[in-house]
Amino acid sequence: MDVAATVDQQSQQDVPFYEPVGNECELFEHAFRQHLPFLLKGPTGCGKTRFVSHMAARLGRPLYTVSCHDDLTAADLTGRYLLQGGETRWVDGPLTRAVREGGICYLDEVVEARKDVTVVLHPLTDDRRLLPLERTGELLEAPDDFMLVVSYNPGYQHILKSLKPSTRQRFVAMSFDFPPPAVERDIVAAESGLPAQQCAALINLAARLRAMKGQDLEEGVSTRLLIYCATLMVNGVSATQAAQATLVEPLSDDADVQEGLMEAIRATFGED
Amino acid sequence: MDVAATVDQQSQQDVPFYEPVGNECELFEHAFRQHLPFLLKGPTGCGKTRFVSHMAARLGRPLYTVSCHDDLTAADLTGRYLLQGGETRWVDGPLTRAVREGGICYLDEVVEARKDVTVVLHPLTDDRRLLPLERTGELLEAPDDFMLVVSYNPGYQHILKSLKPSTRQRFVAMSFDFPPPAVERDIVAAESGLPAQQCAALINLAARLRAMKGQDLEEGVSTRLLIYCATLMVNGVSATQAAQATLVEPLSDDADVQEGLMEAIRATFGED
Amino acid sequence: MDVAATVDQQSQQDVPFYEPVGNECELFEHAFRQHLPFLLKGPTGCGKTRFVSHMAARLGRPLYTVSCHDDLTAADLTGRYLLQGGETRWVDGPLTRAVREGGICYLDEVVEARKDVTVVLHPLTDDRRLLPLERTGELLEAPDDFMLVVSYNPGYQHILKSLKPSTRQRFVAMSFDFPPPAVERDIVAAESGLPAQQCAALINLAARLRAMKGQDLEEGVSTRLLIYCATLMVNGVSATQAAQATLVEPLSDDADVQEGLMEAIRATFGED
Amino acid sequence: MDVAATVDQQSQQDVPFYEPVGNECELFEHAFRQHLPFLLKGPTGCGKTRFVSHMAARLGRPLYTVSCHDDLTAADLTGRYLLQGGETRWVDGPLTRAVREGGICYLDEVVEARKDVTVVLHPLTDDRRLLPLERTGELLEAPDDFMLVVSYNPGYQHILKSLKPSTRQRFVAMSFDFPPPAVERDIVAAESGLPAQQCAALINLAARLRAMKGQDLEEGVSTRLLIYCATLMVNGVSATQAAQATLVEPLSDDADVQEGLMEAIRATFGED
Amino acid sequence: MDVAATVDQQSQQDVPFYEPVGNECELFEHAFRQHLPFLLKGPTGCGKTRFVSHMAARLGRPLYTVSCHDDLTAADLTGRYLLQGGETRWVDGPLTRAVREGGICYLDEVVEARKDVTVVLHPLTDDRRLLPLERTGELLEAPDDFMLVVSYNPGYQHILKSLKPSTRQRFVAMSFDFPPPAVERDIVAAESGLPAQQCAALINLAARLRAMKGQDLEEGVSTRLLIYCATLMVNGVSATQAAQATLVEPLSDDADVQEGLMEAIRATFGED
Amino acid sequence: MDVAATVDQQSQQDVPFYEPVGNECELFEHAFRQHLPFLLKGPTGCGKTRFVSHMAARLGRPLYTVSCHDDLTAADLTGRYLLQGGETRWVDGPLTRAVREGGICYLDEVVEARKDVTVVLHPLTDDRRLLPLERTGELLEAPDDFMLVVSYNPGYQHILKSLKPSTRQRFVAMSFDFPPPAVERDIVAAESGLPAQQCAALINLAARLRAMKGQDLEEGVSTRLLIYCATLMVNGVSATQAAQATLVEPLSDDADVQEGLMEAIRATFGED
Repeated sequence: MDVAATVDQQSQQDVPFYEPVGNECELFEHAFRQHLPFLLKGPTGCGKTRFVSHMAARLGRPLYTVSCHDDLTAADLTGRYLLQGGETRWVDGPLTRAVREGGICYLDEVVEARKDVTVVLHPLTDDRRLLPLERTGELLEAPDDFMLVVSYNPGYQHILKSLKPSTRQRFVAMSFDFPPPAVERDIVAAESGLPAQQCAALINLAARLRAMKGQDLEEGVSTRLLIYCATLMVNGVSATQAAQATLVEPLSDDADVQEGLMEAIRATFGED
Repeated sequence: MDVAATVDQQSQQDVPFYEPVGNECELFEHAFRQHLPFLLKGPTGCGKTRFVSHMAARLGRPLYTVSCHDDLTAADLTGRYLLQGGETRWVDGPLTRAVREGGICYLDEVVEARKDVTVVLHPLTDDRRLLPLERTGELLEAPDDFMLVVSYNPGYQHILKSLKPSTRQRFVAMSFDFPPPAVERDIVAAESGLPAQQCAALINLAARLRAMKGQDLEEGVSTRLLIYCATLMVNGVSATQAAQATLVEPLSDDADVQEGLMEAIRATFGED
Repeated sequence: MDVAATVDQQSQQDVPFYEPVGNECELFEHAFRQHLPFLLKGPTGCGKTRFVSHMAARLGRPLYTVSCHDDLTAADLTGRYLLQGGETRWVDGPLTRAVREGGICYLDEVVEARKDVTVVLHPLTDDRRLLPLERTGELLEAPDDFMLVVSYNPGYQHILKSLKPSTRQRFVAMSFDFPPPAVERDIVAAESGLPAQQCAALINLAARLRAMKGQDLEEGVSTRLLIYCATLMVNGVSATQAAQATLVEPLSDDADVQEGLMEAIRATFGED
Repeated sequence: MDVAATVDQQSQQDVPFYEPVGNECELFEHAFRQHLPFLLKGPTGCGKTRFVSHMAARLGRPLYTVSCHDDLTAADLTGRYLLQGGETRWVDGPLTRAVREGGICYLDEVVEARKDVTVVLHPLTDDRRLLPLERTGELLEAPDDFMLVVSYNPGYQHILKSLKPSTRQRFVAMSFDFPPPAVERDIVAAESGLPAQQCAALINLAARLRAMKGQDLEEGVSTRLLIYCATLMVNGVSATQAAQATLVEPLSDDADVQEGLMEAIRATFGED
Repeated sequence: MDVAATVDQQSQQDVPFYEPVGNECELFEHAFRQHLPFLLKGPTGCGKTRFVSHMAARLGRPLYTVSCHDDLTAADLTGRYLLQGGETRWVDGPLTRAVREGGICYLDEVVEARKDVTVVLHPLTDDRRLLPLERTGELLEAPDDFMLVVSYNPGYQHILKSLKPSTRQRFVAMSFDFPPPAVERDIVAAESGLPAQQCAALINLAARLRAMKGQDLEEGVSTRLLIYCATLMVNGVSATQAAQATLVEPLSDDADVQEGLMEAIRATFGED
Repeated sequence: MDVAATVDQQSQQDVPFYEPVGNECELFEHAFRQHLPFLLKGPTGCGKTRFVSHMAARLGRPLYTVSCHDDLTAADLTGRYLLQGGETRWVDGPLTRAVREGGICYLDEVVEARKDVTVVLHPLTDDRRLLPLERTGELLEAPDDFMLVVSYNPGYQHILKSLKPSTRQRFVAMSFDFPPPAVERDIVAAESGLPAQQCAALINLAARLRAMKGQDLEEGVSTRLLIYCATLMVNGVSATQAAQATLVEPLSDDADVQEGLMEAIRATFGED
């Protein structure tokens, strides 16, 4: 099983753009300073990953991001001996690298991971802050600037999957949601280059589409898709066609639901 | 587990025949230019694969096609160390090859793949466009002319299988359907050599058979099967026998459904 | 997992006996010449395998037969590196051998195979006719005299197992059934040496037993079992005892069903 | 996975005692001479294994017996490369040994085996009589004195497990049951040394206990347990205590059922 | 998978204390002398293991005990090649050791083992008494002083797990239960050092607690736990506290059931 | 599979702070002295792990803690041969290390472990106190100062997971709960540095929140989370915001439940 952790070690100048909504930056920094693990909850594409990137850069720590899935095991996080070019050598997993270097390890959609990851999270998330590596014989003590961050989307129905209370109760936690309209408009404009006024119309449309969530849609339209839509518009695709390809088709396969979404789009941008 | 990706690197002169129906070519090209991943939805044999081949050739990019299935894992896409002739060497998977060379990677029926493929798709489908290869220690940044395309058939009932919203909302998407009659007639004539008039009769028949979908048939008859039928007719098989072998037997095992299909065929071509 | 493919490369003189019922030989030959894959549907022991052997010999092509099962994977068909006598060497699977040599590969009861076989069947069954071997780095193009044939028994209730429409719609297809009485009589006589008149009585009996299918029996009695029965009779076993051992006991474990079958036998042959 | 086949190659003088009940010996011999595979059906401990041993000795063929189970695979029957003392060498499985040497391979409770065993049984049970060994590159043709025998107990409720009709219809089949009283009495006397009169009482008791099958008991008492009981009696255990330990406790854990069985025992032997 | 068999080879002087209740010692010895396998049935902690230890010592045979579980396979019992210090060497499993040395192999809770253990038990438990070791090429014949003993607890509800009749009917069997009060009192006194009078009170209490089984408790209190309780009392823990820690908390997590148990304890020993 | 056991070998001076509630320290010490295994039951974060650390330090024994999970096997506890730097060497698991050194092995949430761990626990928890290591050929006898401690949370609904009575009835057991208010206040104050009066308010709040357990909450708020909350307050986060991030968000994703919790918080600390 491969784990494809991505490492972002940005310089301070490179702090990714993030528009705070409340006290999330302060709370995250307190948790970092007090060595408390952090749990982010919120819908798809609302900016959780961006927020963690922003904080990692602000705090000057490298960031190790892992997208969790059904087959992710403890060894994917800690490391393993690999046969490479005929030789056996130990390769640290992303969690181990974060502990060794004093970075932030971010487990995205942690509820998807297999149950044996708890075995490495538990000793790292109590006052011992330890990461034992049985196979190398090492017992790593997390340095002060190591931090564990996990996230999941509480909007899904995880019948079989959820964090056990004995794991949940080890984290300081926050709920995220889509940014307020003015903030989201600025984000879309900054990322796509679409003029702010057109972005505002898109944000209004997003509000109408998000209101349909729960009835017919599993998830509301994400900020990412709004940026996709704006990008296509900037490049000359008509607003209606751009919206259909980015705000309708990715959200639903149901003809009735699609028609409902298209009505809201036509009401905003008119017929093509 | 083997992954049998096929690579088509055609010269510009070799652009496979594709008859556009709407703005699909423009939208695909915008997505390619703006580095947005693309999702195709539509029924079996309606031309999705042909469309991707066509666009890859038009854009002058090599195409890596992977038919996804229940056991397809991330390593099947990224690559692995193989023991070959007594030596261990790394073999890139089709996705990695597409990233290295700046090609198009097309994952057909992506919902069939195992859940850990999301781990490689996610960092490739946000603004980072990264493909980390833990085992070789590489972190590949996708070049400008890399593009990820995925498809699935929304007509199936995937109770346990579907793209998670957190994955879906990373794609520009389009719905495909069978081509309009005149277009489909020209396609069948061009591929089989059957005269256009006989092809037209076949297209009319296809419309009647497709209307039975949902009641008794899981899928309507595909353009591919129409070409099979026309090919047999060109080679001297009677129209009714050709249609039975290509438009009835491949679609259903149910005697009543088969009789219903045969009635439509006899109404078109008469008894043998 | 082992795959036990059997290879029959008969000379033209050796064409196995097959008595055609309809246009099946012509249709098979058209499919072979036009490079279309072929799907046979029909009950157990009705002669599908014999038909394929016959056609392979008539067309002068080697035949690779694979009995599919729950654990059959793509690698079982394509090949793998094996450790043999301390050395690693690549061993082609039966499908690869058929592609390399231009033969017919016959996958019996293909619905039983695991889902990843679709990954090798799909590129071989569209106009590309390609077999990629990732592990050897080869991309085999099927020669003109390669043909893929698959079969299954639509009479079974496969709740979880069936060919996906996207696979089915790649084949020219035919339904098989038991041969007509006169043909089946000649087959049984030819194979067992029992005089034609006694064979005719056996065929009459088979018709009565087959009529009980669906009510109490999962499958009707096969031509193979009729040959077994005739063989025992030729060797001096009484008709009733031979029929009990070959037409009753192999078909059912239920005492009532067995008694019903025995009544039909006694009505034909009398008490022992 | 280990397969523990036992090989019995007895000389003609050593033919194990077997008392025929009907034409089973003749039918088995016909099947052996005509190269037809054989299927035995019947309850636990009724003498199926003994019958096969007897016939193998009578026909002068070595016997390979395999007790099938949930995890028995094709490789357990055909063989595999084993690392032994640092060297890799091929070790024939019991089926391969029987084919090479012209012996009888007996698969006891064949319905318990995994589905991929059909892959080796099918080509061995049609007119080709072939055993392909992919890994050694051999294609073994079964000699005239090879025979395949399988058995199962139709009395069990195998919801998920049964022979597919396409497998069943490859065998000549017979039903076995417990021997008639006089025969069973002689068997018990011969095996245990208990006088015939006491054995007769035991056989009467067995008939009463077997009549309770289906109501409360999954299986009737086997001939083997009657021999156990007689053996304890010969060694001085009281008849009632011996019967409790061999005819009651092994059959049921239910207090009411046990009491019902004990009543029949006390009625036969009196109180201890 | 590890199998942790423990070997006890005691000298005659070291026969573990066991107080017979009925004819169990004689019956076991008969089975040993006549080479019949033995099945013990009974509740948790009633002395089955102690009885087997006692008999093994009395008969002067080494004892190999294996606690069976969900993943116990045939190879865990027979042995396997292990890589140890860079060399491959065969390591006998506990069953093989018992066969080689003529000892008693005791499979505790045999119904928990995986189904492929039947493959080694069947040839060892019929008149052949054989243990084939495919991987070493050995066919071991069990010596006269080898004995197979298995046990399980019929009080559990094993919906999916039970011995098949074809396995059960190979054993002489006995039911065990808790010892009669006077015997159990002597056992507790001998093991803990608590005066007999206090032990008698404990045995009275045990009878009251065991009467609650089935209503609220899955299992009655075992003799082992009575010894624990007595041991704590000898070391100065109050009777009520000792009973709570050994006779209440290990039996149930339900507050109402615990209160019911505590009432019986307070009625016996008074309040703390 | 990795097992991440953490080893704490503290000097006597380093005894972790633990405030006894009842006779738990005495009972634990009796069990240690009498060689009886110990079972702790209680909710998440109530101090079970701290208690074991405290006792290990008081008794001067090293402590090996293992967080159990779905995939934890016997080999994870006992050890295995590992390939390290090209050489094979045996690495003791945490249980083996505890037995060799005479330490305390603590299996946290033992019901989560796989069933084959019972195979090592059973011989260690009866009077033999043995740990057999099949692979090294060792049979370790536990020294006097070895102790096995296990825990689980009876508050969870473990439909498929529970300790079998045959395992449970091998332990002296105790139920734990959250500490009494005055004790918990002192703990929170000692750990966070928050003045005792503010801690008392927090403890009052905890009582109100815990009263909601069962209706809407799977688990009551743990002492650990109270310490988190106090830590944030000490660092300047407002009481309401700190409580939301530590006592509301980690406990529930349900908006109504969160609002109920927030009401209790606002009633205690007022609006922010």
